[in-house]
Amino acid sequence: MPKKKSLPEIVAHVAQALPALGASSGQIRNQVLLGLAELLERSQKEILEANQADVKEAKKNKLAEALIDRLALSEARMTQLVAGLRETAALPDPLGAIEDFKTLPSGLMVGRLRIPLGLIAFICEARPGAVAEAAAMALKSGNAIIVKPGKEVLKTAQVLSPLFAEALESAGLPGQAATVLPDLSHEGLKELLSLSDRLDLVIPRGGENLIRFVDEHSKVPVLKHFKGVCHLYVDEGADHQMALDLTVNAKVNRPGTCNALECLLVHRQEAPKFLPLVGAALVAQGVKIASSAESMPYLPGATKAKPDDFGREFLGPKLAVKTVDNLDEALAHIRQYGSRHTEAIVTKDQKRALTFLKNVDAGCVLVNASTRLNDGGCLGLGAEIGISTTKLHAYGPMGLKELTTTKFVVSGDGHLRN
Amino acid sequence: MPKKKSLPEIVAHVAQALPALGASSGQIRNQVLLGLAELLERSQKEILEANQADVKEAKKNKLAEALIDRLALSEARMTQLVAGLRETAALPDPLGAIEDFKTLPSGLMVGRLRIPLGLIAFICEARPGAVAEAAAMALKSGNAIIVKPGKEVLKTAQVLSPLFAEALESAGLPGQAATVLPDLSHEGLKELLSLSDRLDLVIPRGGENLIRFVDEHSKVPVLKHFKGVCHLYVDEGADHQMALDLTVNAKVNRPGTCNALECLLVHRQEAPKFLPLVGAALVAQGVKIASSAESMPYLPGATKAKPDDFGREFLGPKLAVKTVDNLDEALAHIRQYGSRHTEAIVTKDQKRALTFLKNVDAGCVLVNASTRLNDGGCLGLGAEIGISTTKLHAYGPMGLKELTTTKFVVSGDGHLRN
Repeated sequence: MPKKKSLPEIVAHVAQALPALGASSGQIRNQVLLGLAELLERSQKEILEANQADVKEAKKNKLAEALIDRLALSEARMTQLVAGLRETAALPDPLGAIEDFKTLPSGLMVGRLRIPLGLIAFICEARPGAVAEAAAMALKSGNAIIVKPGKEVLKTAQVLSPLFAEALESAGLPGQAATVLPDLSHEGLKELLSLSDRLDLVIPRGGENLIRFVDEHSKVPVLKHFKGVCHLYVDEGADHQMALDLTVNAKVNRPGTCNALECLLVHRQEAPKFLPLVGAALVAQGVKIASSAESMPYLPGATKAKPDDFGREFLGPKLAVKTVDNLDEALAHIRQYGSRHTEAIVTKDQKRALTFLKNVDAGCVLVNASTRLNDGGCLGLGAEIGISTTKLHAYGPMGLKELTTTKFVVSGDGHLRN
Repeated sequence: MPKKKSLPEIVAHVAQALPALGASSGQIRNQVLLGLAELLERSQKEILEANQADVKEAKKNKLAEALIDRLALSEARMTQLVAGLRETAALPDPLGAIEDFKTLPSGLMVGRLRIPLGLIAFICEARPGAVAEAAAMALKSGNAIIVKPGKEVLKTAQVLSPLFAEALESAGLPGQAATVLPDLSHEGLKELLSLSDRLDLVIPRGGENLIRFVDEHSKVPVLKHFKGVCHLYVDEGADHQMALDLTVNAKVNRPGTCNALECLLVHRQEAPKFLPLVGAALVAQGVKIASSAESMPYLPGATKAKPDDFGREFLGPKLAVKTVDNLDEALAHIRQYGSRHTEAIVTKDQKRALTFLKNVDAGCVLVNASTRLNDGGCLGLGAEIGISTTKLHAYGPMGLKELTTTKFVVSGDGHLRN
């Protein structure tokens, strides 16, 4: 029986796939994604069975509802996943273009060649779909990927793993270019995160604890968001029906996600009429309200907000509500409690809309649109591998372009430095 | 007497300048740079005196020649520095443009607004000019900057510091937006690097030890290169005169810099004629040669290279030379010993030039041009704050654009997520 490979050996083995990936055409890389889509369809029964075992285990371990919602696959979600892979395959090749090309006065020709980042480690918790999507996006953009699935999703991920290899090999590429690791201990994960000579990027997807752990121990650059504490500010003179629809959609469409609404800020002027309206609609949807003292009279059934209800990611059917004097107070609240993730305003006033867009420091700032739309698909990126709340490299949703970089390519005729 | 501020207090104070900087027009920010240029001219005598004291101290402490070369200002370098600030002021405003704007089929309007990164910490060793250039580039791009100068350059930096404040205040901006710290102990530097809630980016500039220290201890994203181990490959059939000129320029133009040549790779076919030519020219320039066994017969006066002469940054008048069988061997050598900084080929063959450009993994890859040209100014960026050898956010020389990021701005008409 062959000796079990060490983690650095596995990572080195995956890295060996990089030259072949880098040299491959966009067509070949698309073939991998289309092959994977077909394999997922063909193996749907097996995948759903493994996933049901994961869900059963999660329920036994009393995981939060929101986590189980993230974990569970269904035939409908599988169909969506497969369609997503085909859409990603159909997107333009993110590699090979020369950008900002110019001939300088010296005659030197300079451009930036779009290239893959290299080897990406994707560390996730409960999202089995994200494992396949991340692998597809990494491969489409010429990167190799190592997936470290959470134990919650281990059985599902283990069924996916050989499908990656099969899709790659069918296209003539090294099967190890997308490798799923077994469940790692904390020490194993730390070892993975220390391999800065091999890994070019780490993307963690999951709860705040996982992400803080990765961020704290990684010697490799990390793109991440800790949490999404998203606000909607209902401006003076805003359309109440639009504000109501946006609030309900942002809160209840899928409360376990990072772009779900956590705090509603309402201009004092609008509170007496708008709050009873939105309060009733939210209660009807089973949402609990934690209200600031001043909003309480307009929100029957609300409980008084504790200080830590602001700046909190409820990950479930609960919403903090606060009345503010004006846009400035809303901006100050968001500056203090926001998480640089997603912030929105509903307003009819063009000037205040622009002030909000300009002054709010977040990866995605929206006017008259649901916070739930901060998603690579909804914003036209075609696909998304995560949302970044740090400003380096990517800020906001990350698509294929964010999995690439450029190098300077220069051509001269014996040019020297003076 | 007021209590001395703690490091977090100083950093928080600098961060308070961010909203005013973010809201300022490009014209106002240019005014800061032009004011600073004028103040540098007016204070030239004082600056040069402080610098001479730094140089005297450095000589007393027996710093390496290359470091003293980096440290020393002269009237000529001051003139160059001031001209550089005015050129930077004249560059287009890197902020405020909306990129990739599109109206999606849903009617949602999406764009990416170019914004500053925020608060940058610039940690440097021996370059006084770089302190002024970094401050100018940070302010031009709407960022605040904290400079931690090395003790080698402390006296010079302390003369520059009040000039930054004066230039900012004259333009109506907060004077603390560019703050020079006093010399910090290692513990103090570690404390600075831990302030990830306040700092958005750390840029270290200096020797490999400094950069490794910063990289190891920083909780803030770091853009850096450890060292520049730059190669020039002389291809089969290359023009010998061009190859000679490029080699000599890349090695002797300024050997203490990161884009200076450290290793010459010569195709076996060209070795018998080219090596004696280049050997004589280098010896005439006082360059010592560490040669592979096979090149030795063609390089009178060369010493035999030790294994660690390859992959080494000499930072002085020494060059490693090696004969290779073909382009593949050159590529393999660069893969093993290069530092992802600057790599060059001299060739007449278009196909091999493209193979080299495509396959070499470095921030800047050049054909028929000196490695010394890997510099923001020479490559048309207008100004440079450093060179990155990591692929995240920036790869290669970093100009004004690399000190900015984008956020998604979205405008809808009550758009919801399905």
